[in-house]
Amino acid sequence: MRPNMPGPAQTAAPSTPRRVLIVGAGLAGSLLAVYLARAGWKVEIVERRADPRARRFAAGRSINLAISARGIKALRRAGLEDAVMKDAIRMGGRMVHPVEGAAGYQPYSADPTRAINSVSRSALNLALLDAAAAEPNVTVSFDERCAGVDFARDAASAEVAFVNDATGATRTVRADLVVGADGAYSAVRGALQRTERFDYAQEFLGHGYKELHIPPVASGPHAPFAMEPNALHIWPRGESMMIALPNPDGSFTCTLFWRHDGAGSSFASVKTGADALAHFSAVYPDAVPLMPTLADDFAKNPVGVMVTVRCSPWTRGRVTLIGDAAHAIVPFYGQGANASFEDCEALADALADAIASNRSIDDALRAYEAARIANANAIADMALRNFIEMRDLTGRTSFKWRKKIEHALHRVMPATFVPLYDLVSFSTVPYSEAKARGAANDRAVRTVVGVAVSLAVAAVAAAILVATGAVP
Amino acid sequence: MRPNMPGPAQTAAPSTPRRVLIVGAGLAGSLLAVYLARAGWKVEIVERRADPRARRFAAGRSINLAISARGIKALRRAGLEDAVMKDAIRMGGRMVHPVEGAAGYQPYSADPTRAINSVSRSALNLALLDAAAAEPNVTVSFDERCAGVDFARDAASAEVAFVNDATGATRTVRADLVVGADGAYSAVRGALQRTERFDYAQEFLGHGYKELHIPPVASGPHAPFAMEPNALHIWPRGESMMIALPNPDGSFTCTLFWRHDGAGSSFASVKTGADALAHFSAVYPDAVPLMPTLADDFAKNPVGVMVTVRCSPWTRGRVTLIGDAAHAIVPFYGQGANASFEDCEALADALADAIASNRSIDDALRAYEAARIANANAIADMALRNFIEMRDLTGRTSFKWRKKIEHALHRVMPATFVPLYDLVSFSTVPYSEAKARGAANDRAVRTVVGVAVSLAVAAVAAAILVATGAVP
Repeated sequence: MRPNMPGPAQTAAPSTPRRVLIVGAGLAGSLLAVYLARAGWKVEIVERRADPRARRFAAGRSINLAISARGIKALRRAGLEDAVMKDAIRMGGRMVHPVEGAAGYQPYSADPTRAINSVSRSALNLALLDAAAAEPNVTVSFDERCAGVDFARDAASAEVAFVNDATGATRTVRADLVVGADGAYSAVRGALQRTERFDYAQEFLGHGYKELHIPPVASGPHAPFAMEPNALHIWPRGESMMIALPNPDGSFTCTLFWRHDGAGSSFASVKTGADALAHFSAVYPDAVPLMPTLADDFAKNPVGVMVTVRCSPWTRGRVTLIGDAAHAIVPFYGQGANASFEDCEALADALADAIASNRSIDDALRAYEAARIANANAIADMALRNFIEMRDLTGRTSFKWRKKIEHALHRVMPATFVPLYDLVSFSTVPYSEAKARGAANDRAVRTVVGVAVSLAVAAVAAAILVATGAVP
Repeated sequence: MRPNMPGPAQTAAPSTPRRVLIVGAGLAGSLLAVYLARAGWKVEIVERRADPRARRFAAGRSINLAISARGIKALRRAGLEDAVMKDAIRMGGRMVHPVEGAAGYQPYSADPTRAINSVSRSALNLALLDAAAAEPNVTVSFDERCAGVDFARDAASAEVAFVNDATGATRTVRADLVVGADGAYSAVRGALQRTERFDYAQEFLGHGYKELHIPPVASGPHAPFAMEPNALHIWPRGESMMIALPNPDGSFTCTLFWRHDGAGSSFASVKTGADALAHFSAVYPDAVPLMPTLADDFAKNPVGVMVTVRCSPWTRGRVTLIGDAAHAIVPFYGQGANASFEDCEALADALADAIASNRSIDDALRAYEAARIANANAIADMALRNFIEMRDLTGRTSFKWRKKIEHALHRVMPATFVPLYDLVSFSTVPYSEAKARGAANDRAVRTVVGVAVSLAVAAVAAAILVATGAVP
């Protein structure tokens, strides 16, 4: 306990503000801090990494995020929509690059005004952290690692031990509520895993990722962009793919998704910059002229791993989880940040409801968890499924027809038939409901195709009968 | 490194025995020690618990185990079959106790000579540990907890740190091969989980278990047993059940499998000895007169949890896993120990093969893991499925008919149609093959039932036609 802190908080005395400790100052932790501070909580955020505000760059995973309806709603609630979205680049569809021939555009929605938004992860994190730190009842500290959690400090609080590995300093923080917002490799969740009857699964993808770079250009139809900026570019190659997202400076961040092991497009078989140049010339030929630093970038940039984490319960006593700590997902639906922001809204709402109706914080945590686990599992499944769609199906003619049928059905009955991509990216329908409706859509599309095939067969048969004179 | 130990082992110099460190002196660790010592390895076993030989009782989980074909084969290979099986009690089938009426016997196999064997876990563990300790090149130590694993000590060895929590003493042990045989909550696996790209899942059952007691009786048809001794007794009650296994002294060990939470037969709703007496009188009425210490036992004995653990890879460098450490399963197929013993055989065989053909230990570990992971997942699935069979299906008439059809098919075509229970318990067919053949069996039984129903319908129709005079 730091000396300048008040003593143990009283459970529900309205005069003493409730205290929340948020472990992790990433996207979810910072946004939750804004919500709870404005709801009257005294908020302490403790982050393991160094303060990103010093160099105005937040360390972390990938460079770009795709923010869509759910994320925008959550940012709006914090008054941050305009600040974040002013630097976002709209992506209305996929630009699919075959090995040979011209790239083809596939809109995300029948509604051309709908788009996902390429945002810098680092800029978004800084904007959220600045907003949190600007709240008078928020304190933020850095360089402190969570070293242990006391879940049962007492019935109405929990305590976390922190250590500063550089100085060796240790301290404990006690709060009415502890929120683990410390990412896919969460230390808070690690402590939960050592408590009884905690269901837990971590599953790594056989594919890794590596970021590469397409710089701005001086001239050309899209200058300063080297390609169409308002699209998510995909080079689908069946088992693997490359994608590229636009940045405000005219550059693109490319991400290779390749198998870790095996032959062909894998990080085990293509190792050096020279290997990469040769491989790219064969597999992504139209990208090579746009990537002058390819060989260097390939040799220098690390290979990342991707993991899906599922667990239950998220809550033990007064400790709960949000964001990647609760449900790390693979990035292929562009929903990681969006899902985490939904967690923040759900937790803040559950706490506000409980407090307003004089129910306990424990009740709020149960309600939050009950509302979110099924949704987290649904988006985890859909994100895994979407990798196959991106890397393989988008390159197939049958897929383009399927999307045309989906969009046509949506235009004919916009309330009844909403394509899964629209439900996930352009609505705030719960993920588990979106997943179920997506399965119903698949059945509807199969019926439409079946009827169309029957009609075509009947038409051909009729034509034959007429042509052969069997009927006049 | 202990001062009386040789220096780092040479990788393949035939004059220097290879060194293996086995973490855990339970069933799997002790049996593997026997195999490897006899194959020329220098074996060190380090166990976290106290030496069970002091009081001739090994601490651990349940009191009884069911040993069947796979376990017997593995014990025979160690020369221990006779010593272990002399105290085993054969169980040729299930004795199913309804709420009202007499118990009914359901044989496990069409072949009445086939039986699973009730064995004391403690006695089996002591027999294996005695056998291991009797080997001249085996050392065993106790009261030392695995505190860390150095997977990459070098390319051809690994090192484990141990701590004695009572004395505070620490040491490290380096070996050519480290085997984690430290059970469902394995510390070696815990260290593996912190290495990159380790897939891991732990899933707890919503049911817990509590052991109870039926003492020997002075008189009666089965004295000293209070019930038929050569059967596994089941009180199937749909969502929950009790079972009883015979012990050599004439007693039975009963195990309740109840939900942790909820109403009815759950450990949350039935809490005291008095509660238990009342509940048992309604739900297990025929057992109550046999359980004179029921109220005391219920109040005193703990509620255990059951977990399924799956992971991959089992091997990192020169460290691998066997038994529950690699694949904790629920107890409902009586295969936990049997599966662990199969691991010991598979690992010993893979090592012997590699050494005989001058391949590396790494090759052997890859071969072992490739052979076992699918089998471990298959028996994990089948054990979960068998809980439903035991607690619910065995009480249903349709299930008894299904078993009769399966046994009849097996008698007609003994090579082609082998019921799943026989494949798992009375054969050494790999679990994954058994599971696949079980699914094929289900299809065959459905076909037989379909044909039988068609024939019956046809017979009834013919009878009606004749009776109504429609045909002469």
